[in-house]
Amino acid sequence: MPALPTTAKGTATSRRILDAAAEEFAERGIAGARIDRITAAANTNKAQVYGYFGSKDGLFDAVIADRADRLLSALPFDADDLPGWAVAMYDENLRRPELVRLLAWLRLERRPAGGPAETRLDKQKIAEIARAQAAGRVRAGDPFDLFALVLSMALTWSPANVAQSPSAGDPEGRRSLLHESVRRAVAP
Amino acid sequence: MPALPTTAKGTATSRRILDAAAEEFAERGIAGARIDRITAAANTNKAQVYGYFGSKDGLFDAVIADRADRLLSALPFDADDLPGWAVAMYDENLRRPELVRLLAWLRLERRPAGGPAETRLDKQKIAEIARAQAAGRVRAGDPFDLFALVLSMALTWSPANVAQSPSAGDPEGRRSLLHESVRRAVAP
Repeated sequence: MPALPTTAKGTATSRRILDAAAEEFAERGIAGARIDRITAAANTNKAQVYGYFGSKDGLFDAVIADRADRLLSALPFDADDLPGWAVAMYDENLRRPELVRLLAWLRLERRPAGGPAETRLDKQKIAEIARAQAAGRVRAGDPFDLFALVLSMALTWSPANVAQSPSAGDPEGRRSLLHESVRRAVAP
Repeated sequence: MPALPTTAKGTATSRRILDAAAEEFAERGIAGARIDRITAAANTNKAQVYGYFGSKDGLFDAVIADRADRLLSALPFDADDLPGWAVAMYDENLRRPELVRLLAWLRLERRPAGGPAETRLDKQKIAEIARAQAAGRVRAGDPFDLFALVLSMALTWSPANVAQSPSAGDPEGRRSLLHESVRRAVAP
């Protein structure tokens, strides 16, 4: 089991490693990433990387958890405002496309399932959607499938879209199309 | 410029290379694919692969074009029945997840844009959507963005989805949710 840093200096080193690793993994995926480039960018060495994170796979998992936590803080979930949440998700991924690229690599390189981080986060959201459904504020049906659909709509113009570039286009028109489409899709 | 095969034997070899390459690229991506594994699976040699396809990148482009053409034949597009098209796309990707994986690798390894194959195919669809919009049968707005949204909805449970496994779940419930959600989203 890798040891978590216990000192301020260790915490700062661990943070530099996570940030450098996020960039390297987002660019090249798990197989393509090189620990050498991460240690050089983070001004540290392999012994510290493996001491804190155990392995390349352990480091990748830590990066996903770190970026997913940051997204969750930036983007509170509200099952009664799925259109607003979808637009906020669209905006966040325009600003920071890194997490979506990390998840896309995860999906391709470690199929068939996603990692532990987003599963944990998803469970709360799905329970909230189920409550909104029970109260008649969101259409009936499998709450997981409904959540997956809304997330997929929100990621239409992100790096998760297999058929289109994320940057070109009209953000204001997309926000409006997304908001109205999610509103219609989830209405009771 | 690579030479296309001109004999029946050459065509059969080229077909075996494309099928072996589709499997190898779908599994490992462009950087991870090995031409050695493709020639072994296709019972041919590197000289023939490079003679027909020029390079590893040329072979990848040819695989994408080949699989996209097959999808297009299997799945005629109808701008007046976008819900039906979305469900057919969902079903086709349940049967053959390969193309979506190929496009996802393309997206990650050759950002920011997609390849020539789907751009060519998309143009026809977008023109048809624009006609249906002009006739008042589909909601107004950028037809490209509307198409991208419907495609993203159709791929919710495919390997393009960054947050969920494609196989688990209830296909009938998903078909019904998808059909109704696209119907609502694109209604005038």
